[in-house]
Amino acid sequence: MSALTTAARGVFVIAVTPFHPDGRIDIESCDRMVDFYLETGATGLTVLGMMGEAPKLTISESCDVVARILKRVGGRVPVVVGVSAPGFAQIDTLTRAVMDLGAAGVMVAPPGSLRTDDQIVNYYTQVAETLGEVPFVLQDFPLVTGVQISPKVIARIVNDLPTCVCLKHEDWPGLEKISALRAEGTLKRPLSILCGNGGLFLPEEMGRGADGAMTGFAYPEMMVQVVDLCNKDDMARAQDIFDAYLPLARFEQQPGLGLAIRKYTLAKRGVIAHDTLRRPGAPLTERTRAEVDQLIARQEKRLKELN
Amino acid sequence: MSALTTAARGVFVIAVTPFHPDGRIDIESCDRMVDFYLETGATGLTVLGMMGEAPKLTISESCDVVARILKRVGGRVPVVVGVSAPGFAQIDTLTRAVMDLGAAGVMVAPPGSLRTDDQIVNYYTQVAETLGEVPFVLQDFPLVTGVQISPKVIARIVNDLPTCVCLKHEDWPGLEKISALRAEGTLKRPLSILCGNGGLFLPEEMGRGADGAMTGFAYPEMMVQVVDLCNKDDMARAQDIFDAYLPLARFEQQPGLGLAIRKYTLAKRGVIAHDTLRRPGAPLTERTRAEVDQLIARQEKRLKELN
Amino acid sequence: MSALTTAARGVFVIAVTPFHPDGRIDIESCDRMVDFYLETGATGLTVLGMMGEAPKLTISESCDVVARILKRVGGRVPVVVGVSAPGFAQIDTLTRAVMDLGAAGVMVAPPGSLRTDDQIVNYYTQVAETLGEVPFVLQDFPLVTGVQISPKVIARIVNDLPTCVCLKHEDWPGLEKISALRAEGTLKRPLSILCGNGGLFLPEEMGRGADGAMTGFAYPEMMVQVVDLCNKDDMARAQDIFDAYLPLARFEQQPGLGLAIRKYTLAKRGVIAHDTLRRPGAPLTERTRAEVDQLIARQEKRLKELN
Amino acid sequence: MSALTTAARGVFVIAVTPFHPDGRIDIESCDRMVDFYLETGATGLTVLGMMGEAPKLTISESCDVVARILKRVGGRVPVVVGVSAPGFAQIDTLTRAVMDLGAAGVMVAPPGSLRTDDQIVNYYTQVAETLGEVPFVLQDFPLVTGVQISPKVIARIVNDLPTCVCLKHEDWPGLEKISALRAEGTLKRPLSILCGNGGLFLPEEMGRGADGAMTGFAYPEMMVQVVDLCNKDDMARAQDIFDAYLPLARFEQQPGLGLAIRKYTLAKRGVIAHDTLRRPGAPLTERTRAEVDQLIARQEKRLKELN
Repeated sequence: MSALTTAARGVFVIAVTPFHPDGRIDIESCDRMVDFYLETGATGLTVLGMMGEAPKLTISESCDVVARILKRVGGRVPVVVGVSAPGFAQIDTLTRAVMDLGAAGVMVAPPGSLRTDDQIVNYYTQVAETLGEVPFVLQDFPLVTGVQISPKVIARIVNDLPTCVCLKHEDWPGLEKISALRAEGTLKRPLSILCGNGGLFLPEEMGRGADGAMTGFAYPEMMVQVVDLCNKDDMARAQDIFDAYLPLARFEQQPGLGLAIRKYTLAKRGVIAHDTLRRPGAPLTERTRAEVDQLIARQEKRLKELN
Repeated sequence: MSALTTAARGVFVIAVTPFHPDGRIDIESCDRMVDFYLETGATGLTVLGMMGEAPKLTISESCDVVARILKRVGGRVPVVVGVSAPGFAQIDTLTRAVMDLGAAGVMVAPPGSLRTDDQIVNYYTQVAETLGEVPFVLQDFPLVTGVQISPKVIARIVNDLPTCVCLKHEDWPGLEKISALRAEGTLKRPLSILCGNGGLFLPEEMGRGADGAMTGFAYPEMMVQVVDLCNKDDMARAQDIFDAYLPLARFEQQPGLGLAIRKYTLAKRGVIAHDTLRRPGAPLTERTRAEVDQLIARQEKRLKELN
Repeated sequence: MSALTTAARGVFVIAVTPFHPDGRIDIESCDRMVDFYLETGATGLTVLGMMGEAPKLTISESCDVVARILKRVGGRVPVVVGVSAPGFAQIDTLTRAVMDLGAAGVMVAPPGSLRTDDQIVNYYTQVAETLGEVPFVLQDFPLVTGVQISPKVIARIVNDLPTCVCLKHEDWPGLEKISALRAEGTLKRPLSILCGNGGLFLPEEMGRGADGAMTGFAYPEMMVQVVDLCNKDDMARAQDIFDAYLPLARFEQQPGLGLAIRKYTLAKRGVIAHDTLRRPGAPLTERTRAEVDQLIARQEKRLKELN
Repeated sequence: MSALTTAARGVFVIAVTPFHPDGRIDIESCDRMVDFYLETGATGLTVLGMMGEAPKLTISESCDVVARILKRVGGRVPVVVGVSAPGFAQIDTLTRAVMDLGAAGVMVAPPGSLRTDDQIVNYYTQVAETLGEVPFVLQDFPLVTGVQISPKVIARIVNDLPTCVCLKHEDWPGLEKISALRAEGTLKRPLSILCGNGGLFLPEEMGRGADGAMTGFAYPEMMVQVVDLCNKDDMARAQDIFDAYLPLARFEQQPGLGLAIRKYTLAKRGVIAHDTLRRPGAPLTERTRAEVDQLIARQEKRLKELN
């Protein structure tokens, strides 16, 4: 498997972790999920992210999931693995394990205790030392981590650390951050910028200079099409497609609840067998399921009108 | 002016505070803004909310703005005034002033230091004592305040304090909270539930039992129509209207940036003279203005197709 | 009254705000308190700080308290006034008022929303513009504000803004911060560093290069003696005095509860008439009062042994 | 090894994790440390707490440390193991491992996302389900976790969950919390209350009804003596001993820096071979070491005078 590089673009889907109703990992669904994502046009996968319920897995479970997914992917696209942890020893252990299994790189979010610019730069400097030659994705997700990383600090990290090849951009609002990073002279090296937030700002993000998306909306085909159309400069059609999916994308982007909605939708689509969240995740109420069903029905109708 | 009651419904628009480019209050624009909101179908106004840049005003400026708005409204709809402050003396002073001017009630958000259930209940008990007979709106906005108020705690406050007549519901996700409050037996008294979050979940909120919206999206006509259609049980049409405005509503709902987008849109529509935010608010970049312009153009096209 | 300068040293006592049992301001106690602080050897006073219950006062009450204290001080020592507020208009209004009354300068803490280095520098740049020629104290109190200001950022502020004359140093731990600021080449201008945290690290802070204390321990004579002895290089005696007061100082340094303990002690000493905190402050339990009484009794015994 | 029960009292020392200068675990120092703690009078040990740098260890390292310590303890005192983790699967795995090795129980702190009373109770209900028959310590440490647990909520947890046998009490301020828990009728079952905060309030905590301490001050003999003397009702002597150690205890209780001071002191005393903190922990500066040395010298002098 070739390593992740600054040339990463397109749609890296954040994979969910499938569970059986009793909470055991549903390893069979992993295969179907990989097939689905790749058929949909994903150019990469990211596993064990926050939306992959990574903190709810033991390290041996994590390795099992990664191994199965990597085997099924079979080198067709690069696979990034989330390895964020409170300590470097844990990051190191998981990184060695998944790189040995064939991952293309890892993703690291900052611990919530970081505040000052130097604290953030020092943290990623130590991360890079720990990872050695393994390329990594800097996950910038202030809403969840509480850590605010200015464009200037991202530039310091990228310019100083050659193994930082990609930014998972998930600030909200974050459009000016893309423009600042893409401005002449900010970055001295290429950097792949892949955007999160469930794709909720994807057309504008592409317009600002993003290379694609790294997020897990249950209809990855929306993201694949929007990225393609933006790359072909057909912004009007990109926005049309985007708008058709927006009512559901908005609904899926509810903090906490969002993952349950995503899994419900994926199960409804036959991608995974069950919509189970591992504890303490709660299942959707009947009412919410009905709301999702109705949004999907309207979405299908609208998509037909578009074609 | 009659007092705010639990019968409040429809759309209470959160008014912006208009400024001149040099930061002085633009008192003339207040009149035009009031006219616009009322012509659009607002059933109430809320002034000096967080989106009214209230913390940036001195108390005498606050009173000037409220006085002018109340005069222009002339009793046609109830006006709620945000009086959240770190201390009860400040809350008391501002409340007396605005009630004397003719406000219908006040709105109070919890200070960020509150954590346990009892702390929250005790705080609102002291608020109610301070306010005396003045009816108040409980503002539940965890994303900004950091205070999480469970439905059980809201019920304790509402059941115990008769002057708590309305909930400004702005949790995210918040749909289950509405269902919990509307469930048989939770509340022992009527309560008006008006929803925030820029209207981004308004059709579903109405479906769950909300009485309307209290938020400031720059196209209040969307909210007025959605509430009306939901009340007439025409959910499909409500969702059609909502969907047409959603791309812009989503864009306006970016934390921090959102108010600048809202003011830019209102200025573009001729509602206020300038899109100035008082410092430290920053103006929109050219790029962002272009994005808003394009979203508005698409929105107009889509609305034509709907009619 | 001459202005606050970078030559400020000694002990600036953070004054409490005295209240009657019914919550009204006890303006008579202000005089007795001023006399007490000055007789004890205070080289300055700071009023309307966080421990002065400033957020619980209306602006007119704030001005009344400041006016009375300034009148009693009569220019004998500089008086600093806390003017922290969510907006610049409020900061500006209170600053003009208290400078007209004869204050020597103002103190400003950062709003809790600041995170990145540039956000903090920009904030204080705007503060300095708002204040004009009025000298100000930068209050660095991360435990309460949540804002972490690195020595580098303090240096940027001090080097760029000539009206920033003093640092109220209240980081915890904060000793290395003093050493970093006092290191050759960090600051390009003189800066007064006065330390907070109830004096709990005063001997070490003086040893690191602080100019004194700005805090409100109910026995300011401890701080006056420690600062004097440190300035005379009699560190052993300074530590002896410090140790004698430490059990009580530690007890007073409990967040939230501390101010009630301080007021109880000051009332017991006859400095203020009542130990009332304005709501929502709660009075001490009988048990806590007994603990304070016992600590004071032991402290007096120990001080006798020292002399 | 017998299980931890509600009869736990005395001093459970929070053990540090010893490292070699290169960051490897110093397994030999574990033996010497165990001997030291037991000779000093510890009635129990707690390993892999926050001050044990637990999050910096891999799970296999954690098990190695626990195994070595348990072997050396040889059943002479109960050993509690910190198993806090973001997910139940991790908690479960580590708990099974350490209980098999002979631990007496485990300790669980709440994840920082918990806010409402019910969220906290639900979390511990799920913890108890996960742990099965394993007795656990509820760690209440709001300064670090950000979670505020009222006495009422602690009582709900203790009354409902028979395996919750001990409270590690580390609120600050926390004295009223002990009194509330010890008040007639609050708890329907016995509960061991062991206090943290480096022992900084130990005499008052014992006076309020605590059963002892669970914290890691580098002179555990202070805590052992204070607890013994309080149990014999010799409060004056307890306070004398406490006061002699207080200047150093205060210095050790600096957040973040405290563990480095503790390890430096333990290394100086010959308890562990090196004062290394695993990255990203920083070593003490020369200046801080000198401050600690001087505090220890004064402490020894003072203790001599006491005897």
